[in-house]
Amino acid sequence: MRGAVLYGPRDVRFEEREVPKIVKPTDAVIRISSACVCGSDLWPYRGIQPTAQPTPMGHEYCGIVEEVGRAVKSIKPGQFVIGSFFASDNTCPNCHIGYQSSCQHRELVGGAQAPVLRVPLADGTLVATPDIPSEDLIPSLLTLSDVMGTGWFAADAANVKPGSTVAVVGDGAVGLLGVLSAKQMGAKRIIAMSRHASRQKLAREFGATDIVTERGDEGVARIVELTNGVGADSVLECVGTQESMMQAINSSRKGGYVSYVGVPHGVELNGEELFFSHVHLHGGPAPVRRYLPDLIKLVWDRKIDPGKVFDLKLPLDQVAEGYREMDERRAIKTLLSP
Amino acid sequence: MRGAVLYGPRDVRFEEREVPKIVKPTDAVIRISSACVCGSDLWPYRGIQPTAQPTPMGHEYCGIVEEVGRAVKSIKPGQFVIGSFFASDNTCPNCHIGYQSSCQHRELVGGAQAPVLRVPLADGTLVATPDIPSEDLIPSLLTLSDVMGTGWFAADAANVKPGSTVAVVGDGAVGLLGVLSAKQMGAKRIIAMSRHASRQKLAREFGATDIVTERGDEGVARIVELTNGVGADSVLECVGTQESMMQAINSSRKGGYVSYVGVPHGVELNGEELFFSHVHLHGGPAPVRRYLPDLIKLVWDRKIDPGKVFDLKLPLDQVAEGYREMDERRAIKTLLSP
Repeated sequence: MRGAVLYGPRDVRFEEREVPKIVKPTDAVIRISSACVCGSDLWPYRGIQPTAQPTPMGHEYCGIVEEVGRAVKSIKPGQFVIGSFFASDNTCPNCHIGYQSSCQHRELVGGAQAPVLRVPLADGTLVATPDIPSEDLIPSLLTLSDVMGTGWFAADAANVKPGSTVAVVGDGAVGLLGVLSAKQMGAKRIIAMSRHASRQKLAREFGATDIVTERGDEGVARIVELTNGVGADSVLECVGTQESMMQAINSSRKGGYVSYVGVPHGVELNGEELFFSHVHLHGGPAPVRRYLPDLIKLVWDRKIDPGKVFDLKLPLDQVAEGYREMDERRAIKTLLSP
Repeated sequence: MRGAVLYGPRDVRFEEREVPKIVKPTDAVIRISSACVCGSDLWPYRGIQPTAQPTPMGHEYCGIVEEVGRAVKSIKPGQFVIGSFFASDNTCPNCHIGYQSSCQHRELVGGAQAPVLRVPLADGTLVATPDIPSEDLIPSLLTLSDVMGTGWFAADAANVKPGSTVAVVGDGAVGLLGVLSAKQMGAKRIIAMSRHASRQKLAREFGATDIVTERGDEGVARIVELTNGVGADSVLECVGTQESMMQAINSSRKGGYVSYVGVPHGVELNGEELFFSHVHLHGGPAPVRRYLPDLIKLVWDRKIDPGKVFDLKLPLDQVAEGYREMDERRAIKTLLSP
């Protein structure tokens, strides 16, 4: 089979790879229905994160189970399944309290930008849909594998409640789905920080009530102004840089909640500054597995349509083009069809 | 009158100062029943925080109201009152959600190691006891002005619940009262980190179930071992150094709660490390005012005895000795009687 492999900065190749097989008795092998490019794939693509060796890319996936290992009990061939980028046993103490992305036996899932994928710890990781989905639901179901689960975690970790005033830093797919999540959780006011017309439009479709185009200190001043000098109850940091983190912290009200869901790159928080900000801070790799059953139901019942973040759809063999469009911010998120 | 004034590193003088008077119509002037030395007074005392000019010391206080400004409505002369180190109006949006120590009109209270003290924003800041307290209650009531309120905030911000497993980093008065607070909130297991016999003893009296004497990575390893490889549900960081902060974060379970309540000195948190720790982090200057009514009731009804942290009692004119004993860790906390 052929799949995407990253060789170094801006060098994604679509090339022959071995077809994944069952390695451990707890594995499943699935045939990918759709895959996509993640914002976090852009860190190594841009060379900000080094690529030590040619690396099969992709960690967002959904598809049909082809085969399971002999220890797999609940997942069966023929099911349509979705899983997280971190495989988890879903039974250890960390999974038990809902932090499956810190499972004591977690394994990274990789190589999903390909027709076939091996998923470890299949019983703990994969969740089956009620039936084989109709074609039009697949983009939205695919988002549950990472980007939508991450946006949902951002809103949850920022304590969004009915009536909350929410600010979202970052207009990538995660930020936009953070807007959608905050809306679902009953936020009254959702301020999206964005300076791109197409992203602003999608943010409004997903429930944003206000758009702030300023960044850094000016962005903070605008949020404070919009909230009568108080700051937002909940701030979702969906970028991962020093500037975005400080923008988020300073946009929060005292005693407010700041979440951060993208791996921080070069972020250092000054203890004293954080202390006097008085915020609650929570984040980390999103425990997507925790949310999968509820989010599948919301998509299945057509209550949410997170698949709208895919504004570019390409056949898998054009994966390099998919990266390029996202890197240059012409596309929000690229869907890839094997 | 004579009061404590800090001139520079280890130079506390007991000297003539002007008697405080009503300055603004919202002020009260109180006659101090008892004052004390705070762990945070040791930062400037040790020269870690510079002293730009001679500074009247002391911010923990309780006493009898002598006079109030003409705009003061609820506080009356003759009442026994307790207030926080941050005066607050208790009406602004930050106060309204319980973060009075970030009041939009907050003012630092200073100069309480003296017989008379001016307290700004008296109506918002001071809380009166049901009656004039008996002498033996005064040490415990005094702790509510800062150290006990701070220990309580540490436990609250670390989400201590009935049944929780709690670790407390720091065996100063705040850490010890964090133990007492966690016990009151129903924690099942309370691990105090301490290597001083007298502090270990008090920690046990306050409810600690385990003592860990190791520090740094070894301390973390011990907490992880004691919690079956999982980490504590709640960790109270009551020191404010880089080592204690990392010890706290690494002692937490994934998805656990870490609070920090002492002004951090030289602390820098690496974003990526914090991200993968998966903790909830919350802290800042304790909103003591929020807790005052409930804590006064607990002391008044003799349900808690936080005054036990005072293991040295001196007349006010020996204040310099009080600092010295705490600095050299011979005393946990010094009570000063004018």
